[in-house]
Amino acid sequence: MIIVPEAVIADLITPEASFDAVEQVFASMAAKSAYNFPVIREAIGHADALYGFKSGFDRAGLNLGLKSGGYWPGNAERGLTNHQSTVFLFDADTGKCRAVVGGNLLTALRTAAAAAVSVAHLARKDAKVLGIVGAGHQAAFQLRAVAAQRGFERVVAWNRSPEKLDRLAKVAAELGLPFESVSLDDLGAQSDVIVTITSSFDAILRDAQVRPGTHLACMGTDTKGKQEVEAALLARTRVFTDEIAQSVSLGEAQHAIADGHLREADIAELGAVINGTHPGRASADEITLFDGTGVGLQDLAVASAAVDLAVEKGVAVEVEF
Amino acid sequence: MIIVPEAVIADLITPEASFDAVEQVFASMAAKSAYNFPVIREAIGHADALYGFKSGFDRAGLNLGLKSGGYWPGNAERGLTNHQSTVFLFDADTGKCRAVVGGNLLTALRTAAAAAVSVAHLARKDAKVLGIVGAGHQAAFQLRAVAAQRGFERVVAWNRSPEKLDRLAKVAAELGLPFESVSLDDLGAQSDVIVTITSSFDAILRDAQVRPGTHLACMGTDTKGKQEVEAALLARTRVFTDEIAQSVSLGEAQHAIADGHLREADIAELGAVINGTHPGRASADEITLFDGTGVGLQDLAVASAAVDLAVEKGVAVEVEF
Repeated sequence: MIIVPEAVIADLITPEASFDAVEQVFASMAAKSAYNFPVIREAIGHADALYGFKSGFDRAGLNLGLKSGGYWPGNAERGLTNHQSTVFLFDADTGKCRAVVGGNLLTALRTAAAAAVSVAHLARKDAKVLGIVGAGHQAAFQLRAVAAQRGFERVVAWNRSPEKLDRLAKVAAELGLPFESVSLDDLGAQSDVIVTITSSFDAILRDAQVRPGTHLACMGTDTKGKQEVEAALLARTRVFTDEIAQSVSLGEAQHAIADGHLREADIAELGAVINGTHPGRASADEITLFDGTGVGLQDLAVASAAVDLAVEKGVAVEVEF
Repeated sequence: MIIVPEAVIADLITPEASFDAVEQVFASMAAKSAYNFPVIREAIGHADALYGFKSGFDRAGLNLGLKSGGYWPGNAERGLTNHQSTVFLFDADTGKCRAVVGGNLLTALRTAAAAAVSVAHLARKDAKVLGIVGAGHQAAFQLRAVAAQRGFERVVAWNRSPEKLDRLAKVAAELGLPFESVSLDDLGAQSDVIVTITSSFDAILRDAQVRPGTHLACMGTDTKGKQEVEAALLARTRVFTDEIAQSVSLGEAQHAIADGHLREADIAELGAVINGTHPGRASADEITLFDGTGVGLQDLAVASAAVDLAVEKGVAVEVEF
């Protein structure tokens, strides 16, 4: 059995490798050669924790397994990350546990990679301005991964507490991109690509704030009740997602579906665009929206890439099991 | 993170330690301080494998985690066990992965321990004859664990292919117990305790074959459609189980519930008997039946015991994770 500790992941897997892994598995999902199993999520009644699993099988990549862990709100006080994840990979030919991989950084990378894959396949080629809504831990990963997909010339950002945008400003500076804290009106009016990455339970970005031709990657909504953009916006956008079942039930599309702005049949899989079975963006004026809900197969894909790289670089720990 | 390889389990955990762990967690379940999460079980469409998870949390023992693995029918040809299991334990206070434990032998031990716990709490004290129906891999574990619970004087057994009873005969010899291959009529007429441990999809043991005062541990039915004893038998027995939700849906009780021989309210948790909140066997003539469906919490309980013993004996592999 191969162990890839959390501490070595940062030096192993790049945003580019994460992009490739996530793009492949989205394609595999749309081709029906990969599927996610039902998600388990439980409030365990101890330490205020939410614990569960996301799991699946990719027959193309032969990735079988799960990500397990959850949210422990008291961890920060102990000097630990509140979100704790571990990925377990199994040999699809024998059922033996093949690898245990630290999943904290991988979760951030695979979420950012999903937005990046959506931008690569759906944003206008001439996109120049990148807008980010939100400034949490995950926002920096989003900026780094998405910025690489187009010839962006500047970054605009909004956060409820603007002083927290420092983190994004630093990343933009590293990337050599001018950075500005703006209003939501200005963000919508200027951006060609918008990433929303918040934990909001009310729409932040309004329909009227988004201009034609924009690509939106809505990455924050992964639970019933969460919402980042006004539901009416989805009525005039072409909506794509990682997994339709999650999009309509716990993703950004849940509200537009519930109030009739959108039908499930109107939502397409991003993987179909990757596979060429869906044409993707239809015109320069169309608004495209990627509803990134987060699936277990993404975790397995990046974890498997991490295992391969760890073995190649000699940092995998092998244990007779 | 602590790794306890499959190969060291046999020298670590005894049937007695498994008994204690399973008895404690059944009690915790009945006291509502432990519960199992929904079971995931998927035919993955590769290698004819069934793969999934059983998981849960015991607030009393602070055991959180899952058993993952499944059934790979082609494994025997590769010199591997067809059933492959790995148990993952998490720190309930932080969500970090605490241990990875080989789960193959543990699965056999915890299943046998469940039957043994039922015999300890429900069989007549003066039980003398132990009957075993079935002669597969698991049957030997059952015999070993159950034989220790009463002053049994002999073992009778039945199997569709009687020549396969050799395995049980050997275990009985080790235990110093006379052993006889008998008909089902004779088995029912002579036994004080009967363990059924088959993979049957039709009732094997008939209602009329079981005499008053018997305790039955039905351990083979863990799937919709499986059945070991005639449903009418459950109408005149006091039925106990590990988890009522599983008992009525995929356990031995599923058929008696479906055809009206039994109501869900008639089934009691074995844990309630352990806790003293249910009186258990009401008379020497009553037939008691334990419907052992197998729950994730059993796996966590024995795996946690194995981790403690592995650390104590210095055979745990510690990996910085």
